[in-house]
Amino acid sequence: MTLNRKPIQVLEAVHRVMEKVRVLPPETVYYLNSGGRVLAEDLTATNDVPVFTKSAMDGFAVRASDTEGASGDCRIEFKVVEEVPAGASSDYILKKNEAFRIMTGAEVPKSADTVVMFEQSKETEEGFTVRKTFTKGENIAFQGEECLKGDVIVPEGTLINPGVTATLATFGYEYVKVYKKPVVGVLSTGSELLDAGDTLERGKIRNSNTPMVLAQLGRMNIEGRHYHLESDDFNTILKRVREMIEAVDAVITTGGVSVGDYDLLPKIYEALGAEVLFNKVAMRPGSVTTVSAYGDTLLFGLSGNPSACYSGFELFCRPAFLSMMNSRNVYAPFINAVLDENFTKPNPFTRFIRAEVKFTEEGLLVKPSGFNKSNAVTSIAKSNGVIVLPGGTRGFKQGDKVKVMMTDMTSGTDTFRVPDK
Amino acid sequence: MTLNRKPIQVLEAVHRVMEKVRVLPPETVYYLNSGGRVLAEDLTATNDVPVFTKSAMDGFAVRASDTEGASGDCRIEFKVVEEVPAGASSDYILKKNEAFRIMTGAEVPKSADTVVMFEQSKETEEGFTVRKTFTKGENIAFQGEECLKGDVIVPEGTLINPGVTATLATFGYEYVKVYKKPVVGVLSTGSELLDAGDTLERGKIRNSNTPMVLAQLGRMNIEGRHYHLESDDFNTILKRVREMIEAVDAVITTGGVSVGDYDLLPKIYEALGAEVLFNKVAMRPGSVTTVSAYGDTLLFGLSGNPSACYSGFELFCRPAFLSMMNSRNVYAPFINAVLDENFTKPNPFTRFIRAEVKFTEEGLLVKPSGFNKSNAVTSIAKSNGVIVLPGGTRGFKQGDKVKVMMTDMTSGTDTFRVPDK
Repeated sequence: MTLNRKPIQVLEAVHRVMEKVRVLPPETVYYLNSGGRVLAEDLTATNDVPVFTKSAMDGFAVRASDTEGASGDCRIEFKVVEEVPAGASSDYILKKNEAFRIMTGAEVPKSADTVVMFEQSKETEEGFTVRKTFTKGENIAFQGEECLKGDVIVPEGTLINPGVTATLATFGYEYVKVYKKPVVGVLSTGSELLDAGDTLERGKIRNSNTPMVLAQLGRMNIEGRHYHLESDDFNTILKRVREMIEAVDAVITTGGVSVGDYDLLPKIYEALGAEVLFNKVAMRPGSVTTVSAYGDTLLFGLSGNPSACYSGFELFCRPAFLSMMNSRNVYAPFINAVLDENFTKPNPFTRFIRAEVKFTEEGLLVKPSGFNKSNAVTSIAKSNGVIVLPGGTRGFKQGDKVKVMMTDMTSGTDTFRVPDK
Repeated sequence: MTLNRKPIQVLEAVHRVMEKVRVLPPETVYYLNSGGRVLAEDLTATNDVPVFTKSAMDGFAVRASDTEGASGDCRIEFKVVEEVPAGASSDYILKKNEAFRIMTGAEVPKSADTVVMFEQSKETEEGFTVRKTFTKGENIAFQGEECLKGDVIVPEGTLINPGVTATLATFGYEYVKVYKKPVVGVLSTGSELLDAGDTLERGKIRNSNTPMVLAQLGRMNIEGRHYHLESDDFNTILKRVREMIEAVDAVITTGGVSVGDYDLLPKIYEALGAEVLFNKVAMRPGSVTTVSAYGDTLLFGLSGNPSACYSGFELFCRPAFLSMMNSRNVYAPFINAVLDENFTKPNPFTRFIRAEVKFTEEGLLVKPSGFNKSNAVTSIAKSNGVIVLPGGTRGFKQGDKVKVMMTDMTSGTDTFRVPDK
């Protein structure tokens, strides 16, 4: 079969995928299980913060007016009338030169208006002395000074990081509305593929793309379901893909997208009536990467080449899945780095090179990670980023500035900055 | 009680902790559950890669010598005698001007020595023609050209990322030896603390530090066990900490480390006979952070201030826990960034400021994330990094270069580059 394959730029390809994404419905989860999910509701302050006026220091709560005129030569003495540990408070009304002994976080009693730190006082038998005049409000955190009840603290669409978890706890969101995570089916086509536990047979290799994609999903805490094939023929694949579309939110296939006689996926897409968003991308490796849409289900046809499969997932699947969870910051950040060895190949298409990023005092140094054939699975193991060289360039030298896609980050950006041609 | 608290530099504090770390023993896990763990054995090639000489392209496998003399004017014709799909091979011996039709990844039969890509051929009735002379080995990936059986592919001590998972699959490591993960107990002291599900009471606040620390552990896929206290008195805490030391690999307490009358942890450490590694660090916030060691168990006394608690975890706990798993690259990378607003406070100690990092075409822009009081739990939610300003400085201006600790990365570096005084 012949296919009309017109390469499109990476940026355009990513946009075509993202346009098709449908956000999944919300669900309610226990707040301690919400890490990495995306808020489906604004998180509003259910109380002022601080919820009461409290001491910011360990010390003594007094009336500022009682300290007036104090100096090194003329210390003013206070008598401690009560203790206020954290979690307690007091309705006692201070009289002149009386004080509460108060701990950090404890409610400042109404009759006091400033806190003298232990370090600013000198102990006496009944209390302490001070040597300076205090102004109202010193060492006090006032009710509502951080935020007021009803303020939106974290907007809907925010990825829940440990700071958000803390905020959920602060405001009593024991259960929180988040967007569902996609369940992703992974199908590997290719009758030459064995599982990790199998003994090698002549002409066959062990399947490494499916485990890698499952690990890429696992790193995102997304459930990946591995679908097997009894045989590699058209009808078996078509039947399996139909089952997957019923059962999962997105489908990834690895292999089966090039122009070989046994690469059946284009025919499968046709038989399904799926809309092919693109079937050729101006990138290396992975130019044959194909993405189709069947209703709301995206079908990602990643290249069987391990490096292409890896970067295809990071480029197209990861932002799509984060977007299905309604995250805004779905793209891996691109950071400037200095190339640490020559890379002399021409780049007719945008090139993605698995890379080792070194963080130095001066900035980022980057070099291709080890053996650099595009089928070298072993080099992905050492990489913590991907060098991206624009199409239409050649001959990058040690010391040149290049862009690195940061694939090892748990947070991202809202703009995709790939340097295409 | 009075404590002799001499502040030490952050770098020194981290080193004191890391010196005390004991690596946990290895265990064997299913390879698809090994993501984020650290290899406890070298991953060696159990076969050559490629394991057999295979076609790198879809096309025709021929004898290079049969193409000699071919040109545009004098095309040489080949007859296809057999098909070799991926996963198959052939023992047929080619005769002059015979060819196998071969797919990418299929074993190149012994009698062929070069592969003509489809694009380099023109179909005829019985086969195809070529218009150039091919040299031996074109479009072929030779057995062992990537690596040889016995080569160490990924060394012991490597964090298992998706690329390593793929490598495990390639070489048939269905089960793999990894270092155990620590189980971490988290105890929050402070009788003013309520749980997320509780209704607010006068003088009390909901505990946000424990959920935050549990989320920080969760982000590392480390099990955190929450230990409660019935009351805040010395004996209850001591008993609970003793139980924790028996049950877990490391203990985190939040709060209870400052100089207030009710901060009992220093006394607890003393009663246990634990060695205090430090009880004052030249950093803000969190100068009261205390770390002790009781035998092989590290006791992290994080500040009750949410920001200090957050950065204390990232500075001291995270690298220690990764190191217990025998990872080498345990430190968050520091990246140069440009400050995007003025920060005029003096920094007597090294200062850690929760920050929003923006990735731009030119480089990283960074600014403090929102409200900047050290107890502002809400600002951690927006942050994706931490600005670190060296002690002994003051008056950083918009446009100044600063260091950012990248707390949102799944991989790290082997050197801790904090800019101390």
